[in-house]
Amino acid sequence: MTEPTLAAAAASDGAEVVGELTELRASIDNIDAALVHLLAERFKCTKKVGHLKAAAGLPAADPEREQEQIQRLRALAEESHLGPALAEKSLAIIVAETTPHHERIAEAHQR
Amino acid sequence: MTEPTLAAAAASDGAEVVGELTELRASIDNIDAALVHLLAERFKCTKKVGHLKAAAGLPAADPEREQEQIQRLRALAEESHLGPALAEKSLAIIVAETTPHHERIAEAHQR
Repeated sequence: MTEPTLAAAAASDGAEVVGELTELRASIDNIDAALVHLLAERFKCTKKVGHLKAAAGLPAADPEREQEQIQRLRALAEESHLGPALAEKSLAIIVAETTPHHERIAEAHQR
Repeated sequence: MTEPTLAAAAASDGAEVVGELTELRASIDNIDAALVHLLAERFKCTKKVGHLKAAAGLPAADPEREQEQIQRLRALAEESHLGPALAEKSLAIIVAETTPHHERIAEAHQR
């Protein structure tokens, strides 16, 4: 039996790293696809909320509800060991995208 | 049988709107919980990628891979009728949060 050379060992380590990276990236890609599909489902819900609010003459933004959501997400993030800053930032974007959308829906209802 | 008054009709409409809003918000809360848990799982993967890269002496950021992810998410967003701008913005945040994290891991490995 021949001893593996250092170069051969390094090459096999390299191949192992590439293999592990490829596997992890495939998982990340799967998770991203799930995230996009969930976001799409979430937007279907918020769009309906926008139409309901506009039809009922309710304001597009609801700071109390948003505050509750932030609290909830903060707790969830802590529970799942995700940084609360990231969870909040993600929600902030989602909320920021949703409110102007509700306002546009409200404007369209007023026309 | 008595005719419902206008006020009673409005009150019942109001109750219906509140009921629908409550139901939609419960769905949004469920989706948000799923989003947070998926993000937590994604971060477990990116953390492993960070450690692998640092151990192998690879750079923390990988612009080519990021470009591929953006293209993939854009296509996924289109497929699921989610605005591509929102999908990209969400990814931009995720990537922005991940890279400094990888850099910190790389620094810790160098010590």
